Amino acid sequence: MAYPKFVTIFEAGARDGLQNVKDVIVPTDVRVELIDRLTDCGIPKIEAGSFVSPKWVPQMADTAEVLSRIRRGKDVVYTVLTPNMKGYQQAAENNCEEVIIFAAATESFSQANTNCSIAESLERMKPVADAALAEGRAVRGVVSVVLGCPFEGEVEAERVAEVTRELWKMGCYEVCLGDTIGTGTPVKAQKLIEAVARDVPIEKIALHFHDTYGQSLANILAGLEMGVPTIDAAVAGLGGCPYSPGATGNVATEDVVFMLNGMGIETGVDLDALVDTGWWISEKIGRRPASRVAHAIMSKRKRAA
Amino acid sequence: MAYPKFVTIFEAGARDGLQNVKDVIVPTDVRVELIDRLTDCGIPKIEAGSFVSPKWVPQMADTAEVLSRIRRGKDVVYTVLTPNMKGYQQAAENNCEEVIIFAAATESFSQANTNCSIAESLERMKPVADAALAEGRAVRGVVSVVLGCPFEGEVEAERVAEVTRELWKMGCYEVCLGDTIGTGTPVKAQKLIEAVARDVPIEKIALHFHDTYGQSLANILAGLEMGVPTIDAAVAGLGGCPYSPGATGNVATEDVVFMLNGMGIETGVDLDALVDTGWWISEKIGRRPASRVAHAIMSKRKRAA
Repeated sequence: MAYPKFVTIFEAGARDGLQNVKDVIVPTDVRVELIDRLTDCGIPKIEAGSFVSPKWVPQMADTAEVLSRIRRGKDVVYTVLTPNMKGYQQAAENNCEEVIIFAAATESFSQANTNCSIAESLERMKPVADAALAEGRAVRGVVSVVLGCPFEGEVEAERVAEVTRELWKMGCYEVCLGDTIGTGTPVKAQKLIEAVARDVPIEKIALHFHDTYGQSLANILAGLEMGVPTIDAAVAGLGGCPYSPGATGNVATEDVVFMLNGMGIETGVDLDALVDTGWWISEKIGRRPASRVAHAIMSKRKRAA
Repeated sequence: MAYPKFVTIFEAGARDGLQNVKDVIVPTDVRVELIDRLTDCGIPKIEAGSFVSPKWVPQMADTAEVLSRIRRGKDVVYTVLTPNMKGYQQAAENNCEEVIIFAAATESFSQANTNCSIAESLERMKPVADAALAEGRAVRGVVSVVLGCPFEGEVEAERVAEVTRELWKMGCYEVCLGDTIGTGTPVKAQKLIEAVARDVPIEKIALHFHDTYGQSLANILAGLEMGVPTIDAAVAGLGGCPYSPGATGNVATEDVVFMLNGMGIETGVDLDALVDTGWWISEKIGRRPASRVAHAIMSKRKRAA
């Protein structure tokens, strides 16, 4: 086993997280403060918003304002989701140094989520990647439903690898594997990573796991064992799953950082500050933090006081 | 990696779980029904109660009655905690084929939990083991605070191995490593198992992890990779942690079985029946199941209906 010495935390709470908290639209002030607090926690990469139609995603309608108001940390990357050229242009106007493009691993999910086939969605993404690269922006490629699809069930690793291969060929500096419905388990995660790593260097693979079935940390461990160096997570486990109403969303950043700390893997993240941030945003949205580490540490602090 | 093909689930919910649910004493009828339901789920080993002073553990005062009323499944082992000869005699009178003895891995925890040193507690356990073995009963040895102590913090693997060695020498057929406060992480878990496995064959080691910090499944995966074939868990994550009030207790059996199913490792356990059982007992005690799999599967069933 050769674990990475340093793992990059990609914090998805302010976008993927808040976008999927049911029936909640977070005020711009709060979203700005969340991102500033995450910056202060030492998080190196923060998903700050998305440029999509506010009709579809009203939660992210204020992304331009958020970007103009956040305090940009030294060496911190703020990235946004840009599903098309219109979104990309807004990202460029708002000084984003990195954009995210994405596709699904199954045709059914692609149709349900973006109303087009996988091939069509990759075609839509190509000009975004071209423009971003021409203008000196980094492009991250994300694939959804990589370890299970709400419509098709099991997903073949090879089908995912076909999509990551295309994203990699477009010039993405990293491809991120999203277990959107959280049904993945460790052996399947490793087989998937193995298939993707035939085209994409292992150090350019990131894992984005949802904790719907509580499997994320085990799956992340399985990925770390193979040398995957980048882990997506959301503070307080922000988010949810439209396919499992009431279930847990993204794996909680606190729980990931606790595990990595215990394994002697560096992240640069201040766990105590992160617990505070997760508690604060959970109160703001009227939810109980989904991070177990957050509850255990808060309980420990109370006893100490 | 050589994962075991079959993992034995040791279900701790009816004892370790219910004993540690704060402010709840479950009626005998319910405890009997819980054990019967677990039997019907295909669980091979069930911790059915303990023979300790009802003054200290009122939750388990009805263990003799529970044992007399449960329906004993074919090939299912029902085991009880017997901390001294008095407890052992009750176990023998009540037809138990297996008993549990235990010790702590740190002096502070031993004093706090059993009011004696580790050496004294092992001395107390010796006659229990001797009597059980002489009368043809199996003896399981459990060690607590193996990956962290609420009083001493980090625990050296070698100190745990000293205790497991003594339990193994007493004739225990298996030693079980208890991460009582749930602070363990995968690399530490593997170092611990490595140290214990110097004296105890790997196939005679069991893992008993608490999910206080959400680390259990990752730690279990780390153990499975080394060949550990027995996992303790509690349906619905029953239990709690006296050292982290409000925090999660035992790892949920549903979450463990889901992971093992996904990895192609057999358990003989019916996951759907287990989810029903966990939901039922959680309602009985007025708690929300701590199993993420339970919530995801219930949500899926609701959508299907």
